[in-house]
Amino acid sequence: MRKQVVIIGGGPSGMLLGQLLHLAGIDTVVLERRNKAHVLSRIRAGILEQGMVELMHKAGVGARLEQESYLHNGTLISHNHEMFGIDFQQLIGKSVVLYGQTEVTRDLYAAREKVGGDVLFDVEDAEIHDAERDHPYVTFRRNGRTERIDCDFIAGCDGFHGVSRRSIPASVRREYEKVYPFGWLGILSETPPVNDELIYANSPDGFALCSMRNANLSRYYVQCSLGDDVGDWTDTRFWDTLRHRLPPEVGEALVTGPSIEKSIAPLRSFVSEPMRWGRLFLCGDAAHIVPPTGAKGLNTAASDVHYLYTGLTQFYQDKDSDGIDRYSEKALARVWKAERFSWWMTSLLHRFPDQSPFDLRMQGAEMAFLRDNEDAQRVLATNYVGLPY
Amino acid sequence: MRKQVVIIGGGPSGMLLGQLLHLAGIDTVVLERRNKAHVLSRIRAGILEQGMVELMHKAGVGARLEQESYLHNGTLISHNHEMFGIDFQQLIGKSVVLYGQTEVTRDLYAAREKVGGDVLFDVEDAEIHDAERDHPYVTFRRNGRTERIDCDFIAGCDGFHGVSRRSIPASVRREYEKVYPFGWLGILSETPPVNDELIYANSPDGFALCSMRNANLSRYYVQCSLGDDVGDWTDTRFWDTLRHRLPPEVGEALVTGPSIEKSIAPLRSFVSEPMRWGRLFLCGDAAHIVPPTGAKGLNTAASDVHYLYTGLTQFYQDKDSDGIDRYSEKALARVWKAERFSWWMTSLLHRFPDQSPFDLRMQGAEMAFLRDNEDAQRVLATNYVGLPY
Repeated sequence: MRKQVVIIGGGPSGMLLGQLLHLAGIDTVVLERRNKAHVLSRIRAGILEQGMVELMHKAGVGARLEQESYLHNGTLISHNHEMFGIDFQQLIGKSVVLYGQTEVTRDLYAAREKVGGDVLFDVEDAEIHDAERDHPYVTFRRNGRTERIDCDFIAGCDGFHGVSRRSIPASVRREYEKVYPFGWLGILSETPPVNDELIYANSPDGFALCSMRNANLSRYYVQCSLGDDVGDWTDTRFWDTLRHRLPPEVGEALVTGPSIEKSIAPLRSFVSEPMRWGRLFLCGDAAHIVPPTGAKGLNTAASDVHYLYTGLTQFYQDKDSDGIDRYSEKALARVWKAERFSWWMTSLLHRFPDQSPFDLRMQGAEMAFLRDNEDAQRVLATNYVGLPY
Repeated sequence: MRKQVVIIGGGPSGMLLGQLLHLAGIDTVVLERRNKAHVLSRIRAGILEQGMVELMHKAGVGARLEQESYLHNGTLISHNHEMFGIDFQQLIGKSVVLYGQTEVTRDLYAAREKVGGDVLFDVEDAEIHDAERDHPYVTFRRNGRTERIDCDFIAGCDGFHGVSRRSIPASVRREYEKVYPFGWLGILSETPPVNDELIYANSPDGFALCSMRNANLSRYYVQCSLGDDVGDWTDTRFWDTLRHRLPPEVGEALVTGPSIEKSIAPLRSFVSEPMRWGRLFLCGDAAHIVPPTGAKGLNTAASDVHYLYTGLTQFYQDKDSDGIDRYSEKALARVWKAERFSWWMTSLLHRFPDQSPFDLRMQGAEMAFLRDNEDAQRVLATNYVGLPY
């Protein structure tokens, strides 16, 4: 088989890129390690920047998002049980949109099926060959047989554990990493969200986040120890911990119920440079991870998709390789800004085991300054709604 | 002897407080451990916030400052040899003033002498008694004799190593501290400053600062190791190191010459709470230290003086103790903001021995964001010119 672009990874960035390229007349195939049901069951981020929303529209999958998403015009921050608001609309006239990653992926799969785009599932042992030469190809096993696809370019959208990044020789890669000394315990419950905007809480006992999927599906998180086992966290313990970290008036309003999902995720900052190696381009988690504080994971993957889509259409339509030649540089400039913001939000909102009394006061002074200073709020808002591509 | 207020320490904060209280008809004595020549020879900060300038005018010592100071409408920041400006005037319509601490102290001494205010020099073994009772007093040795001064209140303006803070029982004090893993090597030279605004430089080899006292007196600093001995730093080594840390165009313009002063200072963040203990009030370095990055030391002492002067005049003129009762709370609220800013400036501008490649990239991303974002610049400018009292 021969394709112009092989996309490794059928998550939201791979599927979004595939759909955009398809509409530009570029022939692609998506290779996915799991099956479709598995991909669609992944519960992830839910806050979309305006840039991501525009890409969805550009990809022709904006209709349901337009109907079913919720506009979030601001967010609430609580520090030691005192709460203040950051009003994005008032500060900078912009908003974010609440629409689950699961829904994004579902819409993209539906669109791909409608246009008959190739998606191969249950692809095992994918390998990238000759990426640094003119005629790269990808091999993999499926249904017990080895297959090969020749192509012009490969888009590595296969996440942190995927094969794409590891296909770039270690001697070429520079990796930057910070592992945070805590995790997030998250639950999903069929209860009305305690508030219609997100609440980020830094309490003496640690971080908590009140989020949601829709009017009757809540998503809550609490900072937990890295060594914690999800089995140690009964629903009762979770709700008590959460309530205790929120301002009293929020805690009282909290509606609890059985969790329908419960899991612990570590927090990591990670960037691998460069994001291009010959004819291989890394997109999203394959090249970088942010801690979830600030909701930049999916949105930063989307900005990669934007740069790569722009570069590839320039190449095929205008015979101009400038966009793909500068892909790594352009994508990384924005990636590092998102990394900075996510690191700053994480540092501001969590309690760290090695925090000295002085460090704790610095965190408190930063919170007080943010509460009182509109320029500081505008800096937060500008980053939260998403920097321009 | 009996005085309404005993001021321990004849540095700029003690002298400024004394002068303000004198003009309000409050009787004070200043006790200074050293002699006048020693006090006037101390070379310290030179950047004054508008609030400090106003206090100088209020104290009747604004004339020479008005004539001889330089207005600084902005500052320059260099990162890896690329420079950008922060224009305070354009961003927030405010400026800072360059006027050496030595000059401030000189003006205050001249004014004090003119009004015949008491200053006792060479005061040894000062001790504070009964600060938590209604009739406190201070004892000390001078010219071989023990003396005692009874008073209503004691202002502890005697710096980090003074007796005042240590007179508050350890069980009452909460201390917060951070010691930075480097020092500043500073020189004074009779050369024209390389630039008419300050240049703060973060280079791969560490921090450097180009400052000045006047048109033919330059003050330069470079980050050095804590273990460095000033004797290891010849003038040549200093100038080479400095030049190497500046953007090439600045390095080329640098006029060098023999140093007339050279010293190494450690960098420390420190706050002691509370700032009031009964009838003892701490002011300035006696209660808090900031690293010099951002020039907040003298200015934060001045804001303490403002709150204490306001409280004491309220007490004597209006029989209202609210100002002195809330002194610690009000002063500390502003102190912590200055601590935060100084810590942030220090973190942004220095290279740290334990900085990981990721940390270094976060610093670079923060610099890039500051260079490109006006709200972030406005946050810096607002803090640099001084938060309102």
